[in-house]
Amino acid sequence: MAEHANIKQRVMAESSKKRTEIAELGEFGLIDRLTAPFKATRKSTIKGVGDDAAVIEASRDTALVVSTDMMTEGVDFDLTYFPPKHLGYKAVTKGISDIVAMNATPEQVTISLGISSKISVEFLDELYSGIEFACREAEVDLVGGDTTASVNGLIISITAVGRAKKQSVVQRSGAKVNDLICITGNLGAAFMGLQLLEREKRVLQGINEPQPQFEGYEYLLERYLKPRARYDVVAALSKEKIVPTAMIDLTDGLASDLLQICKASKCGARIYLERMPLAKQTSALAEEMHIDPVVAALNGGEDYQLLFTVPLDQRENVMNVGHIDIIGHITAEDTGAYLVTPDGSEIKLKAQGFKEK
Amino acid sequence: MAEHANIKQRVMAESSKKRTEIAELGEFGLIDRLTAPFKATRKSTIKGVGDDAAVIEASRDTALVVSTDMMTEGVDFDLTYFPPKHLGYKAVTKGISDIVAMNATPEQVTISLGISSKISVEFLDELYSGIEFACREAEVDLVGGDTTASVNGLIISITAVGRAKKQSVVQRSGAKVNDLICITGNLGAAFMGLQLLEREKRVLQGINEPQPQFEGYEYLLERYLKPRARYDVVAALSKEKIVPTAMIDLTDGLASDLLQICKASKCGARIYLERMPLAKQTSALAEEMHIDPVVAALNGGEDYQLLFTVPLDQRENVMNVGHIDIIGHITAEDTGAYLVTPDGSEIKLKAQGFKEK
Repeated sequence: MAEHANIKQRVMAESSKKRTEIAELGEFGLIDRLTAPFKATRKSTIKGVGDDAAVIEASRDTALVVSTDMMTEGVDFDLTYFPPKHLGYKAVTKGISDIVAMNATPEQVTISLGISSKISVEFLDELYSGIEFACREAEVDLVGGDTTASVNGLIISITAVGRAKKQSVVQRSGAKVNDLICITGNLGAAFMGLQLLEREKRVLQGINEPQPQFEGYEYLLERYLKPRARYDVVAALSKEKIVPTAMIDLTDGLASDLLQICKASKCGARIYLERMPLAKQTSALAEEMHIDPVVAALNGGEDYQLLFTVPLDQRENVMNVGHIDIIGHITAEDTGAYLVTPDGSEIKLKAQGFKEK
Repeated sequence: MAEHANIKQRVMAESSKKRTEIAELGEFGLIDRLTAPFKATRKSTIKGVGDDAAVIEASRDTALVVSTDMMTEGVDFDLTYFPPKHLGYKAVTKGISDIVAMNATPEQVTISLGISSKISVEFLDELYSGIEFACREAEVDLVGGDTTASVNGLIISITAVGRAKKQSVVQRSGAKVNDLICITGNLGAAFMGLQLLEREKRVLQGINEPQPQFEGYEYLLERYLKPRARYDVVAALSKEKIVPTAMIDLTDGLASDLLQICKASKCGARIYLERMPLAKQTSALAEEMHIDPVVAALNGGEDYQLLFTVPLDQRENVMNVGHIDIIGHITAEDTGAYLVTPDGSEIKLKAQGFKEK
C-alpha cells in the first residue's frame, strides 16, 4: 500500500526529473530501449519483438503470426482529403501487409477505434464499408475490436493474424552474403500521391467548392489512398517453391526497410540506381514538383510492396514469378549499405524515423 | 480510376449528408450496426465479433483467443493522477482480462502507442516498467507493437493472445435457465477509487504542492490504478473441474456486463441486492461522498473481476474455489433482468454506454 501513499510524490517527481525528447532516440532507438528488459518465457512464443509480426506456435507444424499497427489523424492520415472508405481499406492493408511480409496468409483482423465527437455514424458506415471491401477481397475475417472516445482526432488500431507452415515463415534475419535483393511493383508512387494531395490542399485552402487538379496522376492517388497488400505474392512465391531468406514490407521507404533487413541479418547491401523501378507518373510528378525521384524511391514510404532476398541460384524462379525487380545484392556487414549510381559512386543509405508532429 | 476523380465529390458530399450522432446509437448499437455486414469465411475462425475475444483454430484440440483494447488520454485515464507505471500495468490487465474471461490462459501481448509531444522518454520508461511488471507477474510475453505520433494525448492499444483447449473455451452465450450467477472478488471498488482521485483533483486544482487525502482508502486506489486480472481463477476453476456455461469480465459494470450475457444467451436474470459483495472501503467512501453504493456496484466499471454462470449442481464445486459469491440465477428470456431488493421489489437492470467526452 506504501505504493499508493506515494502517488503524489511520483507525479511531482516526474516533472523535476531529466527529460529526454523522443526525437533524440528516434523511433527505432526508442523501441529498442523500451523492449530491452523483456524476456520471452512462453514456449509458444517462437519470435517476439523485432520483426513485421510475432510468430506464435499453433500446432506441431503450423504457426500463427500476429501484427499490430496504429494510425492517428493528423499524423498518419488527413481527413481533409482522405475519403473514409479508402481509409478503412488502407487500415486493413496496413495490417495484413505485415502478415504477408512474414510469408504467411492473413486470415483475421480486429479493428479498434478512438472516436472524436466530430465523427458521425455515417462517416463510420463509410469507413467500415472500406474495411469490409478490403476483408472480402483478401478473404480475411473481421473478428473483433474495441471502441472508445477520443478527445481529439480519429484513431485506428488494427491487429492482423495470419497462418503459415513453420518452415515457410520468413523473418528479417535470414539474408546471406550474395543473396539477390528483390522488390515487387514500383517505388515512391504512394509518396508522390501524398505530395499531390498536400499540394492541392495548400493551393485550395479557403476556396469555396475547390477543384483539385489530379488529371494524369490518378495512379499515384490510388497508390496512396487505396494500396493493396501483396498477398498475391505469397501465393506466387509458393507456386515457384521460393522461400525468401528475408522479407519486409515497404512502409518506411526502401532505405529504412532495407537497413532493417541488414540490421537483423547482420549484413550489408548494394542496390543500383538504374534498377529502381519507378512508374511513369511518379517520375513525371517528381519532375513537375522539383522533387528528386531518387528521394521518392528511397525515402517515400507506404508503398506496401515487398522487399525480399533469395539465394543467387533462385534468379530463374524469381523471374518466373513476374513483375519482380532484382535491384542489388547482399554484402558483408562491414561493407555497409549503399546505393550505387551509374558512374559508380556510392551513396550511404540512411534510415527514416518517427513521424512527429 | 473513376473512383479517384470523385474524391472531391465524396468529401463535399460528406458534409451535406444526414449526420447521426454516435450517442444516438450507443456503443453497443454502433458496434452491432458496423459489424452486421461482415460474414466470417475462414474455417479457422471459430468465433468472431461479439465476445470478450475472438476464437481462432490452432490445432485439432486447441484454440487461440485474441482480444484488443484501446485506451485514450482524457477518456480512459487522466495523467494528472495516473502514475505511468500503474498505467502500463493496467493496460496489460485490460488486455489479458478479456482472455481470462474466455477461460483461456494469456500468453502473449502486443502494445501500440500514439505518443504526443509532451511525453518524454523517461515517462515511457516508467510506463514500460509497469508493462514489464504485469507481464512477468502473469507469465505473459510482450511480442510486438507499433509506435506513432499523436497530435493530442497518449493512446495505448493492447492486443492479447491466449490459449485453451477448445472444449474449455467459455463464451457469453451458454447460460441456461436456473444456472447460478457467480462473481469473484467485490464490486464497485475501482469506481470509488476513481471518484476519490477525481475529488482530490478538483479540490487541489491550482494549489502548489497539493496534499491529496487518501488515508483509509488505499485499497480503492489500488483497485482503480493497479487492478490484477483474475488469471488465478482460470486455474482454480480448472482444478475444481468447473467449466462455466458463460463468462465475461466486469469492465462496464455488473448491470451492463450481465445484460451482455443475457443478450448472448437469450435469457433473463435475477440478482439479489443483499448478496452484492462490497468492500468496507467502498461502502465507507460511498457514504462519505453521498453516492448510493448500489450504483457503484451495478454501474461502476473496471473491476476486472469475473462474472460467470454454472449449472445448479456445481454449487459445491464453486464454494470449494473460495472467494466467489453466488448473487442470483438465470431466468427465462421473457422475464427480463432485474435486481431484487430485500423487500421483494424488482429494479430493471440498464446497460451503460459509450464513454464520450
